Amino acid sequence: MMHIPLTVGSMLEHAEKFFAKKQVISQTHDKLHYLTYADIGKRTRRLMSVLKDLGAQKGDRIGTLAWNHHRHLEIYFAAPGIGSVLHTINIRLSPEHIIYIINHAEDKILFIDEDVLPLIEKIQHQLTTVEKFILMTDKEELPESTLEPLYSYEELLQTGDPTYPFITNIDENDPAGMCYTSATTGKPKGVLYSHRGIVLHSYALGLTDTAGISESDVSMPVVPQFHVNAWGTPFACTWFGCTQVMPGPRFTPKRLAEFIEKFKVTITAGVPTIWLGLLRELENGDYDISSLRAVLCGGSAAPLGLIKAFEQKLNIPFYHAYGATETTPLVTVSRLKSYQQDLTDDEKLAVRTTQGMPVPGVDMKVIGNSGEVEWDGKEMGELLLRGNWIADEYYRDDRSDSAFIDGWFHSGDVVTVNEEGLIKIVDRTNDLIKSGGEWISSVDLENALMTHDAVFEASVVAIPDEKWQERPIACVVLKEAFSEEGMKEKLLDFLKPQFAKFWLPDDILFFKEIPKTSVGKFLKRQLRGVVEEHFNIQN
Amino acid sequence: MMHIPLTVGSMLEHAEKFFAKKQVISQTHDKLHYLTYADIGKRTRRLMSVLKDLGAQKGDRIGTLAWNHHRHLEIYFAAPGIGSVLHTINIRLSPEHIIYIINHAEDKILFIDEDVLPLIEKIQHQLTTVEKFILMTDKEELPESTLEPLYSYEELLQTGDPTYPFITNIDENDPAGMCYTSATTGKPKGVLYSHRGIVLHSYALGLTDTAGISESDVSMPVVPQFHVNAWGTPFACTWFGCTQVMPGPRFTPKRLAEFIEKFKVTITAGVPTIWLGLLRELENGDYDISSLRAVLCGGSAAPLGLIKAFEQKLNIPFYHAYGATETTPLVTVSRLKSYQQDLTDDEKLAVRTTQGMPVPGVDMKVIGNSGEVEWDGKEMGELLLRGNWIADEYYRDDRSDSAFIDGWFHSGDVVTVNEEGLIKIVDRTNDLIKSGGEWISSVDLENALMTHDAVFEASVVAIPDEKWQERPIACVVLKEAFSEEGMKEKLLDFLKPQFAKFWLPDDILFFKEIPKTSVGKFLKRQLRGVVEEHFNIQN
Repeated sequence: MMHIPLTVGSMLEHAEKFFAKKQVISQTHDKLHYLTYADIGKRTRRLMSVLKDLGAQKGDRIGTLAWNHHRHLEIYFAAPGIGSVLHTINIRLSPEHIIYIINHAEDKILFIDEDVLPLIEKIQHQLTTVEKFILMTDKEELPESTLEPLYSYEELLQTGDPTYPFITNIDENDPAGMCYTSATTGKPKGVLYSHRGIVLHSYALGLTDTAGISESDVSMPVVPQFHVNAWGTPFACTWFGCTQVMPGPRFTPKRLAEFIEKFKVTITAGVPTIWLGLLRELENGDYDISSLRAVLCGGSAAPLGLIKAFEQKLNIPFYHAYGATETTPLVTVSRLKSYQQDLTDDEKLAVRTTQGMPVPGVDMKVIGNSGEVEWDGKEMGELLLRGNWIADEYYRDDRSDSAFIDGWFHSGDVVTVNEEGLIKIVDRTNDLIKSGGEWISSVDLENALMTHDAVFEASVVAIPDEKWQERPIACVVLKEAFSEEGMKEKLLDFLKPQFAKFWLPDDILFFKEIPKTSVGKFLKRQLRGVVEEHFNIQN
Repeated sequence: MMHIPLTVGSMLEHAEKFFAKKQVISQTHDKLHYLTYADIGKRTRRLMSVLKDLGAQKGDRIGTLAWNHHRHLEIYFAAPGIGSVLHTINIRLSPEHIIYIINHAEDKILFIDEDVLPLIEKIQHQLTTVEKFILMTDKEELPESTLEPLYSYEELLQTGDPTYPFITNIDENDPAGMCYTSATTGKPKGVLYSHRGIVLHSYALGLTDTAGISESDVSMPVVPQFHVNAWGTPFACTWFGCTQVMPGPRFTPKRLAEFIEKFKVTITAGVPTIWLGLLRELENGDYDISSLRAVLCGGSAAPLGLIKAFEQKLNIPFYHAYGATETTPLVTVSRLKSYQQDLTDDEKLAVRTTQGMPVPGVDMKVIGNSGEVEWDGKEMGELLLRGNWIADEYYRDDRSDSAFIDGWFHSGDVVTVNEEGLIKIVDRTNDLIKSGGEWISSVDLENALMTHDAVFEASVVAIPDEKWQERPIACVVLKEAFSEEGMKEKLLDFLKPQFAKFWLPDDILFFKEIPKTSVGKFLKRQLRGVVEEHFNIQN
């Protein structure tokens, strides 16, 4: 057989040839753009020649600080298209972390969205490797800026060569992209994505039983492009010729609902908090979202109420998925097997609330206290992963040794596996509550609380306890219509029949908001601090 | 990223774990078998340990002479599972070719179906490398045989280890399988399939826009397992957890229709002659085949009438595909793009009759008289292919040099490409008719003739002509209800409005049957001989 390196560039080439007329619809700060893949192809080739002119070399890291739009998509293909590395930077991180990430990755060129410019101006003197800045704007004139040199993306493109070729003499294991995890403790950790990993991951996204991404889809990635490459959907959607709708900077639930209706979006992907927000918008507004055939939800476990609302009230298939920055990210997706179609609605929901089973190409094992766990849906263990789109190290980072052991990535997620091979995230290894020698799953308690009508969000953390070692405390945000009065007792009564007595939280605290990471996960470390302060606990 | 070799064995391992309950239903000479993937997994592992005990080494070729059934499926995974090479042998070839193939491949062990035993006994003394024979039978006692040593498959399995592991320390580019093309001229040519090629090809088969093979499918491969691995469907269907129905030895259209109804088959694959036969059976019998969601048709171009009958009369999507032994085989599949859904029925049919566009992972170019052809649906050129499941040589064969040039496989197929990138096979480079300096497509004439109500099959060949160099002669098989009388004129009148005058055949000859290759393609070389004899042409 021939051995043709699997490359990111070849995916856009396929779209240029065979889906030339299909569109990318892109919201930027100033307007809505309509481009075809023929356009995107030529613009990407121009950008590649520009990057080469600016001195970008094979292996150089090219940083982006940008929302979801067509220019960001073009860099997705242009950076790896010349053998450089696309480094998407999470713009929601603290300036300190952003500085750390850019310097640690040694980014040479930075692509910047208009609204991120002030931040970069502020930190520019702490950036040790960046040589050039490129502003992505629709405006003809560049704004006044202290960045030097600062180029206009569109002006540069005009000087580019629209026929510039994608690199082909490259090892498919070479890095094409990188992303830093927004770790809840310590500095962010970098992960490199290989060309091979991204292409194989794209195949997996196109499988009928995974996301089934198809030419007939209209895909709107709501998950940011700086969050594990928008879960790889822009790569797969381009390759398979989908219409893509990029919702642009600082979108609101209203814009999402409007775009779904207007562009007949068929598939979208994002974290639970996004869908909670959209759900509220849909309940209050009058939108036709019947085009949606799939909502992919990952990043953290979706509460049952959310899944139920999409599946049963809105009649939109809601696919619970699981992955991580270290896994490109798709690892599992929860789909009903053919022989589960006859289950009752509640039984189906029980399947839907699992994270599902590994997609073809990913191998897993779950290690408990005494080796691999039973597939009984009960025994807990840490999820270990292997595959061609699973990282084998953190980029130049000592912490690699504790996560990548004997060829397996130790995810830090505690799961059970049922007899069908479906995993269910029980907790993070660090968030499990150890009470009296037993384990309590904070996630199970959270999910139960979030099925209560009055609860908008709930997070459960441990506080130290002399007798039991640790005890759970629930932190709850109520929906607007509900008052805190008597609610603590009501919620405890609500939990009682569902859990063993020792699982019940010792207290329930009410909050206006629960602190979250930049990608929408509960920031338990910070929350624990607040709770410990509340109880006057000294560490 | 981790680099895990893509291996054939890992696909069955996935099915064992996550689709343990799903079934393979298999017709053998004596009975219908029902096995789960848990069973198939254990039996395959037993077989691997048996093969090792029998002395099979990494790289050794293991031959099969067998129909479509579960034991053949087990060898599909067991041979590459120990690093050996699955060599499926076309049992419909002449004994001379079978001898050549087995000796050229240097097969060490042969797996034989009951009804092929007499053939192998006859040729055994001409086999120079085979050391052991294994008979696949349901019977408890082996038949009397002159083969030595001859083992019983099921007896061997009883001695095997059901936990034997699949090989993992292997280069994914190592060969996993091989197949010889039934060349119309000269000796068969061998093609090696790598583990990498088969796994990537399986991904392609699972893509929604390709065959969309899914866990919910019930797949019945009608194309023989000795014909380019039944087009790779047994690999993909196992990986994705489909129910598989193996129709066994010497099946009839009646058995196919019955199995579709009985097992609710959703997807099937085969050559046009199979579907012509099934169509006749369906017209005469009373079958419920509403479960079918896709018929994949390849091997040779499907006549319009056939596509029309499936699409419009039976309401079953008929997917025209293209491939070759050298291409594992899937190269293109014809699917309507989303914006073609509004076309008229006839326009849709026109799309359906093309071979479609390359699936993701295959690259093509079409070279005419002056470089790459225009994508105008008119200019003809030879189809060149590149990709990870495209061969880069014939196995130990001097003829490699003329087919594999500068990194491209020269398919020998002449095609046009339309503005959507859809290819249409016009002819074989060798079968194009050159008349008066112009090219005439024998395939276009055949397809036109086969849309006529009276025509069952038609093949058009060239005869030498002093003035024009070559001229077309049509060879036609009429449907039973029609007589030859006056038919020649009727058919010529039917063709006239459809073609330029110089395209019209100089004569139409009527036959009871048109000679075909062992895989159902018209055997034009032999037909040309018959026609030349008819016209008393001396070569």
